Amino acid sequence: MQTNRPLILVTNDDSVEAPGFHHLIESVKEFADVIGVAPAEPQSGQSSAISVNKPLFITEVKYFSTPQTPIFKVNGTPVDCVKLAMHAIVPRRPDLILSGINHGSNSAVNVIYSGTMGAVLEGCLIGIPSIGFSMLDHSWAADLNGTTLTIKKITGAVLQHGLPAGICLNVNIPAGCTPEGIKVTRSAKGCWNKEYAEYTTPEGRQYYWLTGYFDNVEPTNSETDEYWLSRGWATVVPTAADMTAHDCISGIKTLLQLSD
Amino acid sequence: MQTNRPLILVTNDDSVEAPGFHHLIESVKEFADVIGVAPAEPQSGQSSAISVNKPLFITEVKYFSTPQTPIFKVNGTPVDCVKLAMHAIVPRRPDLILSGINHGSNSAVNVIYSGTMGAVLEGCLIGIPSIGFSMLDHSWAADLNGTTLTIKKITGAVLQHGLPAGICLNVNIPAGCTPEGIKVTRSAKGCWNKEYAEYTTPEGRQYYWLTGYFDNVEPTNSETDEYWLSRGWATVVPTAADMTAHDCISGIKTLLQLSD
Repeated sequence: MQTNRPLILVTNDDSVEAPGFHHLIESVKEFADVIGVAPAEPQSGQSSAISVNKPLFITEVKYFSTPQTPIFKVNGTPVDCVKLAMHAIVPRRPDLILSGINHGSNSAVNVIYSGTMGAVLEGCLIGIPSIGFSMLDHSWAADLNGTTLTIKKITGAVLQHGLPAGICLNVNIPAGCTPEGIKVTRSAKGCWNKEYAEYTTPEGRQYYWLTGYFDNVEPTNSETDEYWLSRGWATVVPTAADMTAHDCISGIKTLLQLSD
Repeated sequence: MQTNRPLILVTNDDSVEAPGFHHLIESVKEFADVIGVAPAEPQSGQSSAISVNKPLFITEVKYFSTPQTPIFKVNGTPVDCVKLAMHAIVPRRPDLILSGINHGSNSAVNVIYSGTMGAVLEGCLIGIPSIGFSMLDHSWAADLNGTTLTIKKITGAVLQHGLPAGICLNVNIPAGCTPEGIKVTRSAKGCWNKEYAEYTTPEGRQYYWLTGYFDNVEPTNSETDEYWLSRGWATVVPTAADMTAHDCISGIKTLLQLSD
């Protein structure tokens, strides 16, 4: 690896084998030295989960690794990957942490459950500009070429200008097309419905498997990430690592009938 | 169960066997019918993780369950517990979702990793007032009696007045004392350091185990949750389920050099 270029740490939640991870690495190599550290197994829906009680191993993945772009896997979550990369893998502090390209949307409320964004929030907490990229197609066979220009534009700008303290970016990109452009917007509000399929074991015991569909509860003309994605735009949602609802502190004080 | 009283769903992340879970249930029985649905195994650090690819089973825990207060376990995460309770367990929509009492702090940045708060955020996303309670002692042998008045006061007020849409509460309670009182405040900023202990397997392979210490990076007189907890107060942090940094949308647009 060169040492006079910026350094980008790339991770994801779909595992080190996911095409989106390698497409993201290829897309940003022109800007910086790149190190990839990804989960050994798929970690979709792992949010900011950390492995609190198990041994973590780092394995260089010879099949993908090159001297210029070393690639490692960790038997943990996306946040584990970032933490352990910082502790034991990167040769210097990264200038940028990227996560993705996730195979599937992380728009709207899904940011809460997203392992992709878990890694990004971790980067943000340790003070490194961090961006998550997701494409709206779950298939690993999906054509990722339409994402490249969006990734380059956003990565280049953030490498140059940084991000405000405590803020990371959640980028979603429509599937199967070159986006109309990029909109900076907010997460759509909504929730999941009909969340479980029900089955019965051979022994007659009932079990449940997560499924369901997302209900966007926004008015149809609200300009959210869902709104712009459905119109073919890539979306960028500035995302705060501090979840304090600062505007509500005074109201909650009143509600709890506290005097000061 | 009676049907003319409010209904409270109680969950946690330390598992159905944790003393904090049962202390929380006992503390709020006077207000409402209570159903407990907790993870079968400890889920600390599971954040808002969901089980996307495994069968989930619901088991009534006869040892704890009574006709008045049925207790179930689910082989999943705290968020799985809330989702599956809503899908298949509760006889009517709960008026309140409580999570805890967590054995250990969920102050400051730790809300991001907290399984306790994962369940609370899930309740908030589905529009039910939700509160997480944590006590600053990891020991399951800790005396929990000092938490009772704080739990009753906050639960009673929220049952009566509800919470603003999209806002839940993260309550932390000092260990081993009756708190001085309750402060509504914000999360302290900080980060974890020296995060891994290093070991070697009998075969000579290196592995890593999560540990570390939390660095509060706030000025010493900043009135955060850490500040008040260290002075013997219980803290309430209003927490937003929407992580959009609304104030930054315009700035990020400029940073990315987007025209509208």
